[in-house]
Amino acid sequence: MSTKAVHIGVIGLGTVGTGTVRILQENADTIRRRVGVPVLIKAMADLDTKKDRGLQLSGISLTTDAHEVIKDPAIDIVVELIGGYRPAKEFILEAFKHKKHVVTANKALLAVHGEELYIAAESAGVSIGFEAAVAGGIPILRSLRDGLAANDIASIFGIVNGTCNYILTMMTSEGRQFEEVISEAQARGYAEADPTFDIDGVDSAHKLAILTMLAFGTPVPFDDIYTEGISRITPLDIDFAGELGYKIKLLAITKMVDGEVEARVHPTMLPASYPIATVDGVYNALSVVGDAVGSTLFSGRGVGDMPTGSAVVGDIMDISRDILAGCAGRIPVTAFRERAVLPVRKMDDITSCYYLRFSAIDKPGVMSRISGVLGKNNISISSVIQKDRRVAEAVPVVMMTHEAVERDVRTALAEIDKLDCVAGSTMVIRVEEGKQG
Amino acid sequence: MSTKAVHIGVIGLGTVGTGTVRILQENADTIRRRVGVPVLIKAMADLDTKKDRGLQLSGISLTTDAHEVIKDPAIDIVVELIGGYRPAKEFILEAFKHKKHVVTANKALLAVHGEELYIAAESAGVSIGFEAAVAGGIPILRSLRDGLAANDIASIFGIVNGTCNYILTMMTSEGRQFEEVISEAQARGYAEADPTFDIDGVDSAHKLAILTMLAFGTPVPFDDIYTEGISRITPLDIDFAGELGYKIKLLAITKMVDGEVEARVHPTMLPASYPIATVDGVYNALSVVGDAVGSTLFSGRGVGDMPTGSAVVGDIMDISRDILAGCAGRIPVTAFRERAVLPVRKMDDITSCYYLRFSAIDKPGVMSRISGVLGKNNISISSVIQKDRRVAEAVPVVMMTHEAVERDVRTALAEIDKLDCVAGSTMVIRVEEGKQG
Repeated sequence: MSTKAVHIGVIGLGTVGTGTVRILQENADTIRRRVGVPVLIKAMADLDTKKDRGLQLSGISLTTDAHEVIKDPAIDIVVELIGGYRPAKEFILEAFKHKKHVVTANKALLAVHGEELYIAAESAGVSIGFEAAVAGGIPILRSLRDGLAANDIASIFGIVNGTCNYILTMMTSEGRQFEEVISEAQARGYAEADPTFDIDGVDSAHKLAILTMLAFGTPVPFDDIYTEGISRITPLDIDFAGELGYKIKLLAITKMVDGEVEARVHPTMLPASYPIATVDGVYNALSVVGDAVGSTLFSGRGVGDMPTGSAVVGDIMDISRDILAGCAGRIPVTAFRERAVLPVRKMDDITSCYYLRFSAIDKPGVMSRISGVLGKNNISISSVIQKDRRVAEAVPVVMMTHEAVERDVRTALAEIDKLDCVAGSTMVIRVEEGKQG
Repeated sequence: MSTKAVHIGVIGLGTVGTGTVRILQENADTIRRRVGVPVLIKAMADLDTKKDRGLQLSGISLTTDAHEVIKDPAIDIVVELIGGYRPAKEFILEAFKHKKHVVTANKALLAVHGEELYIAAESAGVSIGFEAAVAGGIPILRSLRDGLAANDIASIFGIVNGTCNYILTMMTSEGRQFEEVISEAQARGYAEADPTFDIDGVDSAHKLAILTMLAFGTPVPFDDIYTEGISRITPLDIDFAGELGYKIKLLAITKMVDGEVEARVHPTMLPASYPIATVDGVYNALSVVGDAVGSTLFSGRGVGDMPTGSAVVGDIMDISRDILAGCAGRIPVTAFRERAVLPVRKMDDITSCYYLRFSAIDKPGVMSRISGVLGKNNISISSVIQKDRRVAEAVPVVMMTHEAVERDVRTALAEIDKLDCVAGSTMVIRVEEGKQG
């Protein structure tokens, strides 16, 4: 069979859809040369067909009915960019039924229904590409599948949400409150009108579910991922972190520990000299540690029409090459389901170092009472900062711990927060002291 | 055809060869699961068959005759890890004749004879994998071919020689001389007994030739790459760089400028806050700027048996997947020969900012004479440092320039170096003030 061109149907012309179409059109010559044949957009679907998106539309059918695109026998690859669970999932399954390959950026869908979709793709003998679902333009999924495939992965630490990284960066550089910075991020288009999924860490957890599946070959029930957002972080904590030589980042962390998978998203203090700690603003970054390669870092823009479109079109080109070479479905995602389903480690069982900020009421003996409770719970202190600085009625006391078990920390803090010399609840930030990432 | 296993022959059991075999053996289960069938070492060749390399040898034939490996009809992939031009090139061509795929880490060979080898592989209908030839374990070539394939590449800046990066890092952190640090690097195994290729930039230029071919789809005659090493760099320059907010790195740079390709290797001053400037020690890093993805950074270990072996085995697994899917040679390297051969920009024609350190003899008017010659040659000064610090008979005067044309800088310095108020020749370091890398 000699394929003369590969034909694409795009469903959803939002930010990423528009970027994808623009790249396919503007870089058409480069794409044709690298693939071997032209990659052409045949049809696009969006509920709004009137809006001017500045795209070249000649020769492309534009419809409000996604099914027209999915059923079009001339289309080889369906690109799903509407996001959300429904009707995206039905569209993708229908595309598989029509033997279409699918490229998607839908992290929420894959985090929750990925297994079902990967198996359906394999049964249909087609590919599903989803590089764009994690960390925008950074080719991290492809690197896990291909370039780093020889490695048993030990851990991945990722800054995978550009909105949160921008907010934390602005809070750090300008000493401003979370609430002020988020309004500005919205005004600049770096945060959605409703940024809940970003700031609560849910978006990062979606991406972590996908990363964990590829890294460890095991599906992770989405609800088993511990998820904590950035809204509790205060300028005071960022100041203390800086004084101690750390930066605070929202990290998505997955590790293999004693046959269990850790999968968690939370604000994390990192030594400021770590490469991943230097990645600021809307940039994303992932540190992958493999047994052979050691520590690697990948960074780039995690959001935006063009970076995410770069990943979508990269997937389209990869599948086009498979179509031309007659080996569609060459690497089924399910090839990474390589082990029995591994248990996800309970959050109570993880070990970490901790930053603890107590609000001490200025009574004699407060230090000894706090450190007594910590000691009793097997938590040893590596450093303490107490400043004259007063916040309302209380004085902040910061303690950095050596490695401790999360359960012990929770037990200790439940007791400490009831002491009459402590006001309010203790601020806890986990601290990573790993290898250079 | 149902392939039950993929069989490998390894030629050359030095550092990388040993690492490759170790990964294939130690991670055999992971590799089998991800590829779908076992990937087995059938034969190995090395001139020394007696040495104990701590490898598992049962079931593997070990010979001093590479041809036995190349001709073995049961072997699917020949891994060439002897390095150098001869007999490596003959071995690879012979392997192609026997319809074997080849994986190699031989950057010197590919930099000079790459075109011939890529064409021979395509004619034979087999693949040549060479991820390990550039930046060890970092999957940069694969990212250019696959993940970033949708992009027209604007530039690549790479720290691609771990020895030089280690030496510059030690000179920076400890204020020591080049000569002292290199002995220590040798003692620690981070520099070869004869480190000429590394410190003179030749090794970096080899890697740059390969990167440029993939990034811009044009072969670069190796001799057209401007190559300058690090041996002239002094602690004095590193100090001044630090004072001005810069770090000095040996960079391999390729850019597309007005239809010409720039390809050059030289010590470069980078703003200390750039992510690539924070990559120290034996780590490598590459900043790739694409028109869609924007600025990306990849970093990791650039040397060593296991990181480089990780890249070799990644290539073996990729080719194994092609063999299993019946699409060997799926992406010929020549697919990247996408344009007419592009001219390499002459070094005289490049523009850059410059750090100039003059050795001024303390005569009245020295500043005005130097700046007069610069001005006459269209070079404008952005900042000046003159310190009391005296080196021998002269006082160092540092000038940072705005963007200037290299030819003008050379003309100006030829004149300045003849002035009676200037002792010795002027130290020149190019300065990059690009986008965040």
